[in-house]
Amino acid sequence: MAVYTDVTESDLGAFLRDYPVGELLSYKGIAEGTENSNFLLHTGQGSFILTLYEKRVEKADLPFFLGLMDHLAGKGISCPLPVHRQDGGIIGTLAGRPAAIITFLEGMWPRRPTAAHCREVGRVLAAMHVAGADFPMTRPNALALDGWRDLWAASRERAEEVEPGLAREVDADFAVFEESWPASLPAGIIHADLFPDNVFFLGEKLSGLIDFYFACNDLLAYDLVTCLNAWCFEKDMSYNVTKGAALLAGYQSVRPLTDDEKQALPILARGSALRFMLTRLYDWLHGPDGDLVVKRDPAEYIRKMRFHRAIVSPQEYGLP
Amino acid sequence: MAVYTDVTESDLGAFLRDYPVGELLSYKGIAEGTENSNFLLHTGQGSFILTLYEKRVEKADLPFFLGLMDHLAGKGISCPLPVHRQDGGIIGTLAGRPAAIITFLEGMWPRRPTAAHCREVGRVLAAMHVAGADFPMTRPNALALDGWRDLWAASRERAEEVEPGLAREVDADFAVFEESWPASLPAGIIHADLFPDNVFFLGEKLSGLIDFYFACNDLLAYDLVTCLNAWCFEKDMSYNVTKGAALLAGYQSVRPLTDDEKQALPILARGSALRFMLTRLYDWLHGPDGDLVVKRDPAEYIRKMRFHRAIVSPQEYGLP
Repeated sequence: MAVYTDVTESDLGAFLRDYPVGELLSYKGIAEGTENSNFLLHTGQGSFILTLYEKRVEKADLPFFLGLMDHLAGKGISCPLPVHRQDGGIIGTLAGRPAAIITFLEGMWPRRPTAAHCREVGRVLAAMHVAGADFPMTRPNALALDGWRDLWAASRERAEEVEPGLAREVDADFAVFEESWPASLPAGIIHADLFPDNVFFLGEKLSGLIDFYFACNDLLAYDLVTCLNAWCFEKDMSYNVTKGAALLAGYQSVRPLTDDEKQALPILARGSALRFMLTRLYDWLHGPDGDLVVKRDPAEYIRKMRFHRAIVSPQEYGLP
Repeated sequence: MAVYTDVTESDLGAFLRDYPVGELLSYKGIAEGTENSNFLLHTGQGSFILTLYEKRVEKADLPFFLGLMDHLAGKGISCPLPVHRQDGGIIGTLAGRPAAIITFLEGMWPRRPTAAHCREVGRVLAAMHVAGADFPMTRPNALALDGWRDLWAASRERAEEVEPGLAREVDADFAVFEESWPASLPAGIIHADLFPDNVFFLGEKLSGLIDFYFACNDLLAYDLVTCLNAWCFEKDMSYNVTKGAALLAGYQSVRPLTDDEKQALPILARGSALRFMLTRLYDWLHGPDGDLVVKRDPAEYIRKMRFHRAIVSPQEYGLP
């Protein structure tokens, strides 16, 4: 939920004059996204999203994120399209922040994902991986093992405030990852944050993917297990193998996993759970109180880390 | 900034089946309004606002608020129109809360109001007062003198935390109001909260009024001074008499003030400043920390109360 920066109508009107979107009719701050300020615009040409990039997004990364959306949309992946200014640029400045206009996607994110939603997400995730193969830019994953180490270093001392025993548990995970994190699996462009609120549906048909602001180059199967974590656990933290099987089947209907990828699913899933636990833990311990950021409880991902540690065979996720 | 209650797409889809709005295409929580949860809907029929009424709004008052919008729109005042269900009703239940769908108004609220904006607001406020004259329902002003007393009783003890000397200052104001609050001025339907964020413009033309959830029966000139307070002070709390004159002239171009109303402007303006100071003070002292409510600083309205206390003649507001 987020509007960190308000915009005056005169500043916005002036900003929009460089874009082929027609006259500004209205704009509303929208309570979605936790990183940036987003506004839904109505103009003479339809609906658009205006994003002001707040401090967590590196301005230098914007050409990658926005260029990727352009690239994927050109390959038939439904995602927002950056609107180009008359001078060809897509990144401007508004209210002192980098800003961009992207097309508005109709659709609703599923508050209670079904197996049918999961199958669709798997299918489109694989299609995105295939479509990203010839995207010419690269961006390292800032939240890979090195990034996790930094987050952990900044939180370890107070980790016990959140969950007794957590420090030892996470230390042990890091030791395992140093030793056995898979290095040679198929890699490419990943979304890296494909949670339900970033996937829109009209009925059970996927209408688009949004929020590419964590996209980067990393293991494709790592993106897949992030989805398993985000889509296939119930509120009581039990893994729903029917949803897992649907997501994996949807994925493999477009891009079959290699045997090495299948064998690596448990450790990748455990790593991805650690990654989201760590950002939540960090925000929990360091985030400002009383501001507009909704702090997400790290406990959910502590449960998921434990689930994955107990996995013996990747078939337990629902692989055929 | 407010989305207190999220809604699932299946619950919303089911809710909407009773309304003639077509198929649901998207909905976004919007970061506006401090009392209710608001969503911008796109449907096959266009754009709508869905409001879930949170605890501060009495369900019994909804027929008044929504009926008033219907009435005013029928008289040519541009405001949202409640959408009627097939069974004629306008108030439903969603996510356990009273809920209504209203039409979406294009336009932007002015972040930096000009004298031209002020003139328009005055004009449309007077038109609203005239149009409300034959609205058949009534609602007492819950935030009139009695309501202020309750707020003050709940905050007085800690008022000095906010501003030294405030308790004595406000006690003295109450003594004046008990003695001299005007009783026999023209009364009728007032908006009671016509701040800039409740008035939309396209350019300098007013495109609509929103948020009638404080509307009630009270002195018409009290509504006018609430606008003077909300529109005609600069950020440094100086009164801009050019804007004041424009607002008053706009108002009087539709409904000339009586002499008694003119004479009463200073005490009414002082009372209205007290009313907003008190709700802010109450929220400041009692509001939950760390939630999504933006607490407004009561200091702004303490300055305005002091300004009005020093007024000798109503001409100082910009009356001709």
